[in-house]
Amino acid sequence: MIRFHNCKILTKDMIIAEGNELWVKGNKIEYIGKPKEGVFEREIDCKGNVLMPGFKNAHTHSSMTFLRSYADDLPLDRWLNEMVFPMEARLTDEDAYYMSKLAVAEFVSGGITSAFDMYLYPNAIAEAARSTGFRMTICGAVNNFTSSPKELEANYDKYNSYCENVSFQLGFHAEYTTDIGILREISDIAGKYKAPVSAHCSETGLEREECIKRHGKSPVELFDSLGLIDYGGSLFHCVHLSQRDIDILKERDITVVTNPASNCKLASGIAPLSRLDERGIRIAIGTDGPASNNALSMFREMYLATALQKLQTKNASALVPKKVLEMACVNGAYAMGTNNDCLAEGKDADITVIDMHKPNMQPVNNIIENIVYSGGNENIALTMVNGKILYEKGEFYIGEDIELLYKKCRDITQRIKKAQ
Amino acid sequence: MIRFHNCKILTKDMIIAEGNELWVKGNKIEYIGKPKEGVFEREIDCKGNVLMPGFKNAHTHSSMTFLRSYADDLPLDRWLNEMVFPMEARLTDEDAYYMSKLAVAEFVSGGITSAFDMYLYPNAIAEAARSTGFRMTICGAVNNFTSSPKELEANYDKYNSYCENVSFQLGFHAEYTTDIGILREISDIAGKYKAPVSAHCSETGLEREECIKRHGKSPVELFDSLGLIDYGGSLFHCVHLSQRDIDILKERDITVVTNPASNCKLASGIAPLSRLDERGIRIAIGTDGPASNNALSMFREMYLATALQKLQTKNASALVPKKVLEMACVNGAYAMGTNNDCLAEGKDADITVIDMHKPNMQPVNNIIENIVYSGGNENIALTMVNGKILYEKGEFYIGEDIELLYKKCRDITQRIKKAQ
Repeated sequence: MIRFHNCKILTKDMIIAEGNELWVKGNKIEYIGKPKEGVFEREIDCKGNVLMPGFKNAHTHSSMTFLRSYADDLPLDRWLNEMVFPMEARLTDEDAYYMSKLAVAEFVSGGITSAFDMYLYPNAIAEAARSTGFRMTICGAVNNFTSSPKELEANYDKYNSYCENVSFQLGFHAEYTTDIGILREISDIAGKYKAPVSAHCSETGLEREECIKRHGKSPVELFDSLGLIDYGGSLFHCVHLSQRDIDILKERDITVVTNPASNCKLASGIAPLSRLDERGIRIAIGTDGPASNNALSMFREMYLATALQKLQTKNASALVPKKVLEMACVNGAYAMGTNNDCLAEGKDADITVIDMHKPNMQPVNNIIENIVYSGGNENIALTMVNGKILYEKGEFYIGEDIELLYKKCRDITQRIKKAQ
Repeated sequence: MIRFHNCKILTKDMIIAEGNELWVKGNKIEYIGKPKEGVFEREIDCKGNVLMPGFKNAHTHSSMTFLRSYADDLPLDRWLNEMVFPMEARLTDEDAYYMSKLAVAEFVSGGITSAFDMYLYPNAIAEAARSTGFRMTICGAVNNFTSSPKELEANYDKYNSYCENVSFQLGFHAEYTTDIGILREISDIAGKYKAPVSAHCSETGLEREECIKRHGKSPVELFDSLGLIDYGGSLFHCVHLSQRDIDILKERDITVVTNPASNCKLASGIAPLSRLDERGIRIAIGTDGPASNNALSMFREMYLATALQKLQTKNASALVPKKVLEMACVNGAYAMGTNNDCLAEGKDADITVIDMHKPNMQPVNNIIENIVYSGGNENIALTMVNGKILYEKGEFYIGEDIELLYKKCRDITQRIKKAQ
């Protein structure tokens, strides 16, 4: 059993509580309460630091680390067609495994304890999760060129009984890459399992317009009309939405996953988070992939999420920090269907420790505002996933020497670039 | 003499060069070139990391750390009048000294080696610089309530011969806080010394409109008409500009200092950096104060500067990373008149080491893009100012125990809040 003491704890109600300690037994939170007697393998004096449920990176493409800083400063369509797709064509399943592990290192050093990951190679994601101990929910990535509804269903079975830190959700890439026949088949699978379906949605204005040209419906309207989201799901980006789209999102209990850094960097726009929030729609936050961001930092995303709303609505009080932190720590768990949405007895032990002993966190007028408005990866003292410490004080415990992992990833990237 | 070896070096031309080493003698860069014999007090193996000129924080209010996370989510006018001014009224010169030192700790842990600092207490800023070794250029802060043109002139003399890491530039707070009679007197002083003058300018639409109502001119037009910027200067924020304003900024060789995080957080808007850049206007970057940001991280500002331009211009190639890094590392030196704009022999040794051995910097496809798009304070391995190492691997060498400094600052903040 591991004992965290001398800490402040972010509660389920998004309040920072003092005076309690937290015990972890196996992969679960065993106890939160006043100090009492116990037998421990390890006791961690948190020095007054803050224990939080880890960040949930609710939309990413971990394996794409190989494209970081490779194809910057292009709009989405050219970025995909001219740079991403040709490079991806030379990536193997094994390459993707190492590249995902590199992303896992970045995740845990930034307080992220689980990711909702969509990529060509589900096996690479699953193995990266198993070998590092990181929690991954794999999102189906079916489109006209990759995978199929049949494979999707097989993966749904396979990866939902793979290991305790891996799960799988139905999903496809996007409307603009997936023919309607395939979407109908996926809808049938969703109906069969009564399962949510997730996908990219209305990321750019162009995507939305072309969907309307093709189908007479917006992406959200189309997905709804096909029954794809009858059992909910997560829609990634959702930058360009009509009032009707927003009504459907609410009706279908969709989680909107926002990716503000990526949406800025590809000049896609600002998602209408304040409007969605006012309508009572659940919002989670993702970093998107390292090729379009380029960091995988939930601190950056939290700041951007609120900063861009303040700009968009011309209202400095838009999207207050408490709400943003809830999006980043809590709501992603609903998107992924994981048991790590808060720090409470019986929950999976996915925890991060925020180091308040850094100048950017001082003085302490309001801890949640400090975290959202001032925090950065330098404030992550420790990250635990499923009861295991994967990162502590600059050191990684992910089953691989970090320098060897960097080298492996550099070598893979060089090989792929040379082949071009 | 200190030797940095096994490093990459960002050159004056904004290229990352390999194979050279860098020596520091006293407060100056003594040598950059191929390895050769020498006698050293210390040899630093940089392990392939990047040596850069430190970031220049070209507009900040260091002492305002006491207001971090205290008055969030308000627009500029309410934020100033309801929260900032009443709290500031209870801050002493000594308080401001400690609060500035806290900011210095944040600066050096974020690779910042000099700051252009405007606040009520120039003495506190100067003493914080002297006692920590950090480089400060103090900006005059005259307005109707604080200081006077006479005091400004006295400070100009005093702080320009104070100590080698302190300098002073003429300045005033802003048009909306300073009567035209005072502005005329400052213009006379500028003429007498043929010196640049700096101020807040066109931060909000309201500020601009009210200036036009009062004077029939925009702030930029007004300053120009009064001869205030005949010898150049830096104008902070510049969010709301007309074409005529931009022409004047160019004609007067003004440095525009952008503060994107603060402009988002207070819902002030997006400065037209791409237009300014196309017009050939020098742009530098500042964090603004910790009360309106709330972090003091140039990484955040660099990312926002380019990300917001991509959004504003709907062009993913707007404001490329090389240009952004130049704004952050080089251009601020022109604004402050310091001898630390690049790493070259004879320049003041203001250096930061970027740690590439972190997952967010791997793999390495393009180092400058990695720094601008992925970097964060976790990538600062070392910061040297004026030849002295002030920060290295998480430890501070600023003449004060960091935990005692945190406590002092917390105590001051508590006292001020209780008095309210």
